[in-house]
Amino acid sequence: MFEANVYSGRRKRLLQKMAQAQGIAVFVGNVDAAMNYRGNDYKFRQDSNFLYYWGVDEPWFAAVLDLDSGEECLYGNDVDIDDIIWMGPQPSVASKGEAVGCARTLPLAEFDKAVAQAVSQGRPVHFLPPARYYNQSKLAELTGIPYDQVRKVAPMAADGGRHASEELVKAVVSMRLVKEACEIEEIDKACDLGYLMHTEARRGCKPGVLEQEIVGRMEGVTLSKGWGVSFTTILSQNGETLHNHSHHQIITPGRLLVVDAGAESNTHYASDFTRTYPCSGKFTTRQREIYDLVESANEYAYSLTRPGTTYWDVHYATARHLLEGLKALDLVRGDVDEMLPLGISGLFMPHGLGHNMGMDVHDMEDLGENYVGYAEDQKRHPLLGLGNLRMARRLEPGHVITDEPGIYFIPALIEQWKREGTDKGFVNYEKLAGYYDFGGIRLEDDILVTPDGARRLGSQRLPIRSADIEDIMAKE
Amino acid sequence: MFEANVYSGRRKRLLQKMAQAQGIAVFVGNVDAAMNYRGNDYKFRQDSNFLYYWGVDEPWFAAVLDLDSGEECLYGNDVDIDDIIWMGPQPSVASKGEAVGCARTLPLAEFDKAVAQAVSQGRPVHFLPPARYYNQSKLAELTGIPYDQVRKVAPMAADGGRHASEELVKAVVSMRLVKEACEIEEIDKACDLGYLMHTEARRGCKPGVLEQEIVGRMEGVTLSKGWGVSFTTILSQNGETLHNHSHHQIITPGRLLVVDAGAESNTHYASDFTRTYPCSGKFTTRQREIYDLVESANEYAYSLTRPGTTYWDVHYATARHLLEGLKALDLVRGDVDEMLPLGISGLFMPHGLGHNMGMDVHDMEDLGENYVGYAEDQKRHPLLGLGNLRMARRLEPGHVITDEPGIYFIPALIEQWKREGTDKGFVNYEKLAGYYDFGGIRLEDDILVTPDGARRLGSQRLPIRSADIEDIMAKE
Repeated sequence: MFEANVYSGRRKRLLQKMAQAQGIAVFVGNVDAAMNYRGNDYKFRQDSNFLYYWGVDEPWFAAVLDLDSGEECLYGNDVDIDDIIWMGPQPSVASKGEAVGCARTLPLAEFDKAVAQAVSQGRPVHFLPPARYYNQSKLAELTGIPYDQVRKVAPMAADGGRHASEELVKAVVSMRLVKEACEIEEIDKACDLGYLMHTEARRGCKPGVLEQEIVGRMEGVTLSKGWGVSFTTILSQNGETLHNHSHHQIITPGRLLVVDAGAESNTHYASDFTRTYPCSGKFTTRQREIYDLVESANEYAYSLTRPGTTYWDVHYATARHLLEGLKALDLVRGDVDEMLPLGISGLFMPHGLGHNMGMDVHDMEDLGENYVGYAEDQKRHPLLGLGNLRMARRLEPGHVITDEPGIYFIPALIEQWKREGTDKGFVNYEKLAGYYDFGGIRLEDDILVTPDGARRLGSQRLPIRSADIEDIMAKE
Repeated sequence: MFEANVYSGRRKRLLQKMAQAQGIAVFVGNVDAAMNYRGNDYKFRQDSNFLYYWGVDEPWFAAVLDLDSGEECLYGNDVDIDDIIWMGPQPSVASKGEAVGCARTLPLAEFDKAVAQAVSQGRPVHFLPPARYYNQSKLAELTGIPYDQVRKVAPMAADGGRHASEELVKAVVSMRLVKEACEIEEIDKACDLGYLMHTEARRGCKPGVLEQEIVGRMEGVTLSKGWGVSFTTILSQNGETLHNHSHHQIITPGRLLVVDAGAESNTHYASDFTRTYPCSGKFTTRQREIYDLVESANEYAYSLTRPGTTYWDVHYATARHLLEGLKALDLVRGDVDEMLPLGISGLFMPHGLGHNMGMDVHDMEDLGENYVGYAEDQKRHPLLGLGNLRMARRLEPGHVITDEPGIYFIPALIEQWKREGTDKGFVNYEKLAGYYDFGGIRLEDDILVTPDGARRLGSQRLPIRSADIEDIMAKE
């Protein structure tokens, strides 16, 4: 948690950004999320926007910012004797408000009344599209907007609003995109924790070990020193499956292990790294060729990352770099300049080069990927891979993004392209047939855009060069 | 996952138990639960009732059992190429149905239609009170029942039903209360995992260590070998707070550390143990007096646990045992037979002796604590402590329950009793004043009721006698 003036300063800036808007902005904090029954909940995670503006990291809070008068109020309930028996003595809601620079606090039931009053007075009620189903129901109930419309984002100015507020989304995105110094410090910590997590994974990558065993040990590290994982760990020898969450296989010599995992700090900032290890400790020639290509793409993308360029340009240049390497390996044939705009790289890398990262590992994804990652004059590319980029914007100091190129051999996708001629004759299917059992490789770092260029976050970089990986694995 | 006939057998028995009912019984499986945004989800946990009858451990499934015709159908969607890229190839829904003995499968959208059809035909739609908010919204939408009524349980027979089905709740409770041999095997495994987890905690309990460090290491063990924790770990030197989830303190000599934690196996069966350790490795005299009293209460309760007796009787006898011990320590004064029905034990043990345990750590708690823990002729005691018992029923072979007496010194509660005279003169507040910094002690095992008596679950019992604890901690 930061100093009170961090939160009050953010709310003040939000009011300025919303100066053209009228009505109230409401923020519904998260409530406990049942794992298998109410009362047996998942570890509590506050809504990131609530945390950003109101700082309270506890369930059953809400807040209102009056866009007309500038008044603000935090809503929550003080505890009774029963709560004390089960949860211990707690600071008062008033003192929680004070800690985030909010002088006015009221019981939670008053929040419902405040929203109902605004609705009955015909004042616009600005809210962000809610991530959780409870918040969606709650907003529908309070505003009378149909459940399914609550997550729709559109300009309030045009119609007064029977949906989430585009004005508020844009204002929040513009603020959260550029990280403050205190936030960068926390992301650095999360990256240091990610470093420990990945070191544990690399040490665990030995033939005969169950994948789940490694995942558990890695996640234990994050729980010991941070809030937990920033997303469900991806750890798989089937690296060609981008988000593989099953961990029932035994580490097998000759295969590759993709580890894509990150930590969330106790203050709820994320890290997100990917490394790929040879299960036998040494790469085969075929593995090393692909590995070194992905590693050089990671380095190349980093070298291009600086203020003023767009991340779309970096993504596109990296796609070209990959195609050149694939051509050198005779996996694609022909003119790279011709195949590039046809999206041929998408067969091998069907995802984007990276995404924003902050309090959310894909920062603010629930506000809408296009609002977050694309400026108003930028359009998504229509093709697989090129069009999967989550962050295309012109880079500014304070942006935090991931750099995560990959190459995958996905049999079902290759077969589909072959069948449908999607490759326009550029793909060498004959050679590719030898890669169906290859899996995939992804290499990911977290990057801060600085005034002069960029910096890899965290105090140490996880080993990445193929020779270094082999050296370290031989010693561990 | 069990053999197909386990699931089909359960559904057949459910049909028999519901023979008097008409209409359809619907089961809505859990969907992904957003942690901070949709797509960044908590680790998936299936609804326990869905898992019990339909076995499919994946999100976005539903099922219908026709109570009139006996027909059954499992609903879910097969994957497309996009799913394959991100999640890998998946078995078909038809084969998932086959694996649980259900020959008929359809896409998920057909579930909505099946429910809508039953509603439009005026057929009763039986469902269980949903734990998750999404399921609550979904059932409200499909049935037209107001959101808040969906979790209300009442007899369908009386009014045709604008609420959850009491008949279905009772049928499910009667089945899940008595564990099958295959379930007991899984609970034994979860207990063995709980043993490893607690061993890690005991070894970590050294002065200077941060509580969170121990929690992370324990939870790492459960993730390495099982699904994870069966509930949020309680690990605290403020043991007087029954469900303390903050772990920011340093282990301090002279204090007591309460560790209440359990594992969930990969097949989703729970364990739940509590041990209390002296942070310096040795109990003080005052600590040992209370510890040995709680330990003897745990043993005494176990000795009384057998088929034919009620767990209410065991709870009440244990409360008497605790009062006798507290009287010997001069913390209460007067006739134990008089103070017992006045609930004086509740000041020291404001919770029940134990609860049912199975797929949920408080088994089936979402179906209603009284439906699960109390027979129709049993009423809850009105007082704190005596009335907090979650499982009061007459014991039968196959019941799995916890045995968890405790003694706590809760300053806010003591002050309240003193102020309000709740103790009727039985409490020696003068002596009690010396215990405000004591904390609390709880000792918990998991018990199977057998035809002859009872058995502690798991292949080894966690050390519990005070002398044994000190010996082991000296060596570790």
